[in-house]
Amino acid sequence: MHILITGAAGMIGRKLTERLAQDGELNGAEIKKMSLVDVVVPTRPAAFKGRVKAWAADLSDTKETAKAVAERPDVIFHLAAIVSGEAELEFDKGYSINLLGSLGLLEAIRRTGDGYHPKMVFASSIAVYGAPFPFSIPDEFNLTPLTSYGTQKAIGELLLADYVRKGFLDGVGIRLPTICVRPGKPNKAASGFFSSIIREPLAGQEAILPVKETVRHTHASPRAAVGFFIHAAGLTREQLGPRVNLAMPGTTATVGEQIESLRRVAGPQVAARIRSEPDAMIMRIVDGWAQRIDARRARELGFQAENSFDEIVRAHIDDELGGQIAA
Amino acid sequence: MHILITGAAGMIGRKLTERLAQDGELNGAEIKKMSLVDVVVPTRPAAFKGRVKAWAADLSDTKETAKAVAERPDVIFHLAAIVSGEAELEFDKGYSINLLGSLGLLEAIRRTGDGYHPKMVFASSIAVYGAPFPFSIPDEFNLTPLTSYGTQKAIGELLLADYVRKGFLDGVGIRLPTICVRPGKPNKAASGFFSSIIREPLAGQEAILPVKETVRHTHASPRAAVGFFIHAAGLTREQLGPRVNLAMPGTTATVGEQIESLRRVAGPQVAARIRSEPDAMIMRIVDGWAQRIDARRARELGFQAENSFDEIVRAHIDDELGGQIAA
Repeated sequence: MHILITGAAGMIGRKLTERLAQDGELNGAEIKKMSLVDVVVPTRPAAFKGRVKAWAADLSDTKETAKAVAERPDVIFHLAAIVSGEAELEFDKGYSINLLGSLGLLEAIRRTGDGYHPKMVFASSIAVYGAPFPFSIPDEFNLTPLTSYGTQKAIGELLLADYVRKGFLDGVGIRLPTICVRPGKPNKAASGFFSSIIREPLAGQEAILPVKETVRHTHASPRAAVGFFIHAAGLTREQLGPRVNLAMPGTTATVGEQIESLRRVAGPQVAARIRSEPDAMIMRIVDGWAQRIDARRARELGFQAENSFDEIVRAHIDDELGGQIAA
Repeated sequence: MHILITGAAGMIGRKLTERLAQDGELNGAEIKKMSLVDVVVPTRPAAFKGRVKAWAADLSDTKETAKAVAERPDVIFHLAAIVSGEAELEFDKGYSINLLGSLGLLEAIRRTGDGYHPKMVFASSIAVYGAPFPFSIPDEFNLTPLTSYGTQKAIGELLLADYVRKGFLDGVGIRLPTICVRPGKPNKAASGFFSSIIREPLAGQEAILPVKETVRHTHASPRAAVGFFIHAAGLTREQLGPRVNLAMPGTTATVGEQIESLRRVAGPQVAARIRSEPDAMIMRIVDGWAQRIDARRARELGFQAENSFDEIVRAHIDDELGGQIAA
């Protein structure tokens, strides 16, 4: 089996690459080759015995999308994207990569012809939803994104569904909830605090909480997100039916409940490293975000997120801190 | 006021052009100029006193979309599209006109810059919906089209909403129900019988009914559809909020109720010209279509369709047959 990962240098892309290298197989088939592409050359996985091709490319260029599928990967994990904040600031760049890049990749597959029929797992996002929301978002809720990124992801979903319907490939789009705890440095994303209030205290540092503890949101760990991609690749077209884009499950928690989890798992001295510093702008942005997501179809199809925020905290300690908490 | 109509040579485009020419004004402002574009040169309206520019163009060409907005129309009625059946058969052509054409038009507006800020009314369609459906489709129902045409219209809606949100123009997308009674010759569209079972008998000809009389669907007359476009052009951004795409109201009727209306309005000898000839393929296609559409927001915003199918029959007799029914 030959696997292509676009966006392989991103946080989830790297973790997915490592997981596949470690497993050595996908859906029971041995992985013989991995093709890894991103705007920077992705890191080769350490423990992988098969062939690896890693290169940098701009996927808004149709020559590059043609090259990406030229060696006919069997499974394509399409994660490459200009992220939310950047797509909002750089309108042309966002549409170029997120819309025309995805369209280019689908077109490259279609134009290959000759019986080529890969499976694509497309990384979508809960950014496809836009307020006002019901108490919990059902699978049948409409997509009314309030960002260019969300718009581009919603368009990617529609394109994928139509190309699948026409028989050019198999595919599934997975709407990822907020990934928490994101490893690495704090960033300026409005959603950054959901991770930093867990990550920084566990690393012995102070974290700023810019919103009220009553703010509710839905999370999945990086480990769970990687699991979504792997599981999605194993679904058949019959299981999916015509609606191939699915909201992923997650763990719903208020910020207060997140902090309670941190206290339970790591102790009160760690949880005490969170300092409240309300930020009106962030509060306003977060007010427009989905709180709860049903994800009924995804659960029925076997997608699994953590069952409690405690598990999310523990996943971070295990996967990123080698089990160690800063005293 | 300067008005641009794309798709001005189509059935609704022609009727919209005539109505605007007759009114001589839109939203209280005198119409001084009409620009009419389609793949064939649109007919100039007879009764119009202002300037008319009518030309043929392929709107998938960005030079042509730039030309279409070069004289800065104040209101753009964007009706140009490859229709459902053709978009399904000619994949490239459908995406080229319906996706890249709409994107090109929005981009041409954005790139004009310099404070140019027109209002666009975008002709969308209930083809954006795909079965399975609830009893009646609410405004919050998701868009899971089952045709390339529906996919392209859904993408057009998303693009419009994002360009409006970013402040590049004002706009509203209107999801038209099935237009009934379509004037002209019978065509091969699967939905054609909804019109032909009224139109042909009124013209003294036999009509074939390929489905059961229990089939339920939602209709609006060509006159009502033109009314939707005019009303949409008068809505403010404040009235619309961020969700600028709206399902239009219609009259819900079973085929049996349609025939009852024909009998009431035109007499039993006219209704007797319908002959049942079941067609398994058409029955299967029609089974996947929406039956009822709430259109609550559109009704609250003042959009009006006919109140009964009798009115739809009468509108056809008045508008197309000069009040005369073939004995």
